[in-house]
Amino acid sequence: MNSPAQYSIVSAETMHAEFVRVLLKNGLDRSRAEQCATIFTESSIDGIYTHGVNRFERFIHHIERGIVIPTAEPSLKKSLGNIEQWDGNLGPGILNALHATDRVTELAKAHGIACVALANTNHWLRGGTYGWRAAKKGFVFIGFTNTIANMPAWGALDSRLGNNPLIFAVPWHNEAIVLDMAMSQYSYGAMETTTKKGELLEHDGGFNKEGRLTNDPKEIIESRRPLSIGMWKGAGLALLLDILATVLSGGLSTHEISANKSEYSVSQVYIAIDLTRLNNLNSVATIVDQIINDYMASVPSDQSKQIHYPGQRVMETRKRNLSEGIPVLKQVWNKIIAL
Amino acid sequence: MNSPAQYSIVSAETMHAEFVRVLLKNGLDRSRAEQCATIFTESSIDGIYTHGVNRFERFIHHIERGIVIPTAEPSLKKSLGNIEQWDGNLGPGILNALHATDRVTELAKAHGIACVALANTNHWLRGGTYGWRAAKKGFVFIGFTNTIANMPAWGALDSRLGNNPLIFAVPWHNEAIVLDMAMSQYSYGAMETTTKKGELLEHDGGFNKEGRLTNDPKEIIESRRPLSIGMWKGAGLALLLDILATVLSGGLSTHEISANKSEYSVSQVYIAIDLTRLNNLNSVATIVDQIINDYMASVPSDQSKQIHYPGQRVMETRKRNLSEGIPVLKQVWNKIIAL
Repeated sequence: MNSPAQYSIVSAETMHAEFVRVLLKNGLDRSRAEQCATIFTESSIDGIYTHGVNRFERFIHHIERGIVIPTAEPSLKKSLGNIEQWDGNLGPGILNALHATDRVTELAKAHGIACVALANTNHWLRGGTYGWRAAKKGFVFIGFTNTIANMPAWGALDSRLGNNPLIFAVPWHNEAIVLDMAMSQYSYGAMETTTKKGELLEHDGGFNKEGRLTNDPKEIIESRRPLSIGMWKGAGLALLLDILATVLSGGLSTHEISANKSEYSVSQVYIAIDLTRLNNLNSVATIVDQIINDYMASVPSDQSKQIHYPGQRVMETRKRNLSEGIPVLKQVWNKIIAL
Repeated sequence: MNSPAQYSIVSAETMHAEFVRVLLKNGLDRSRAEQCATIFTESSIDGIYTHGVNRFERFIHHIERGIVIPTAEPSLKKSLGNIEQWDGNLGPGILNALHATDRVTELAKAHGIACVALANTNHWLRGGTYGWRAAKKGFVFIGFTNTIANMPAWGALDSRLGNNPLIFAVPWHNEAIVLDMAMSQYSYGAMETTTKKGELLEHDGGFNKEGRLTNDPKEIIESRRPLSIGMWKGAGLALLLDILATVLSGGLSTHEISANKSEYSVSQVYIAIDLTRLNNLNSVATIVDQIINDYMASVPSDQSKQIHYPGQRVMETRKRNLSEGIPVLKQVWNKIIAL
């Protein structure tokens, strides 16, 4: 349904400048506006539009509504050696997450492994951002966030779990291998995009109102019953991630966040391991090469389809969008330039 | 297909004594035999028969074949503050895993968060064992192991990934909430049990030889194409867990383990966080209570089925098996008493 005519092709520079302009108008100072704009732009360059350009307008609305406080900075609640608890003070989720990532890698550099737990923060947009950032500096990264309730327990009709994205990242040749996965099979963002295109999901993504598994995203958006990955397994992991994010950060759990209609004041955990203490990064890259080479030697079940490793398509899209420009739905772009 | 007549009911004491007897005959000293027997028995009490009594005979065969060295003890390779690398020296996986768990909690007690990576070890049986152990002492636990290749990459015909179980555990009222999940939707053990019963899996568990998703465990065992949880997501996570286990421990990766026909010399990671530094465990239990209470208030889609949290059924089975005895397939038990 979406023809090329529906897209504007926007260069990374133009997009970044536009984001900075709007953010400056909305209470962020120059340095903070630049940082936020960079992350929104990078996610868009990487093709994660749902957590980049497509979500920018909503971020501005959250500032207008007072859910995101543009000037708020994170403050240290408890320091316990290589664990720290921070309060995000409802600041922009991206800025709080960058701070937590940089802080946990600093602590890991000093101690080996470290943990930063962050309460009272906001949506970090693409979780993979922080995995890439830490891993490119030589750290193993494990991170997760809770969310508002948007996914049912296994066997339940109503959504009481968050889809709580989980990130694992490992350094690789000055780049990284990054797994960034929510606990639902498809995000609402992806289902909305597929619905707009008038297409079906490639695989079952949830239950319809009659309780049957379906790949029609419209039916799942209607039922609010997205499928948890691995059925009971992903639902169980979502529950554990919420518990851990809550008890480690001292912040709100999914059921408390869900008492409000909009998602804000979420809880997050960042763990980093300084890999350079154990091995030099060239040797690590060689080991990872061998694992990836073996993986890529898999025999595809469909000759027309490639086997991918996590983050591989992101890097392909990054290259293309940097050289050809970023495709943005005209309706999305027009709203942004009008902000 | 399995009638009650096919089961022996064995008390925990009898099972433990029998295991000790056989282990003493196979090169373990009294203390190590007692420890191994306890873990095998506890997993059986908890109803995880595939990783308890049903796997005991195989463990003894692995000792006989020299894959498991009954007298080997783990040795420290590198100590880097709150990270340690250990060599399992091909000792019994249970004993190495108990050592790594106790060591990582000791380090976490001293530092806050800690990581122990273990190379050259053997199957730890039920991964949840170590989650329960650490969490009951007040620690958050994250642990994972790689395995021999037994699961295809997403879109692949051949199995080049391990199903690499991942464990998350959190303290709760002197007990724990423990998620113990392999990256395949069903384990081969579960599929073999279902096949023996002449039953089908409740949900699709893999592909048949024609490449169609199926819930017939016999077809999946034949094709060797079990389904990864969340399709591409669980396959991606399995890959990352293998990479992390390998680079953190300095041990073998799945593709190297798979060069041998049998699984041995696997790599594992143990992470513990001392929760008592952040909060007292009673307050933690209250927070977890609230999350679990909300979760359990979910509306079931099928009124005849209960919503469960991870580890709940284990605790129910534990209670029943402790009072009524442990049901063991007669053919399994007869082989053990003949060892």
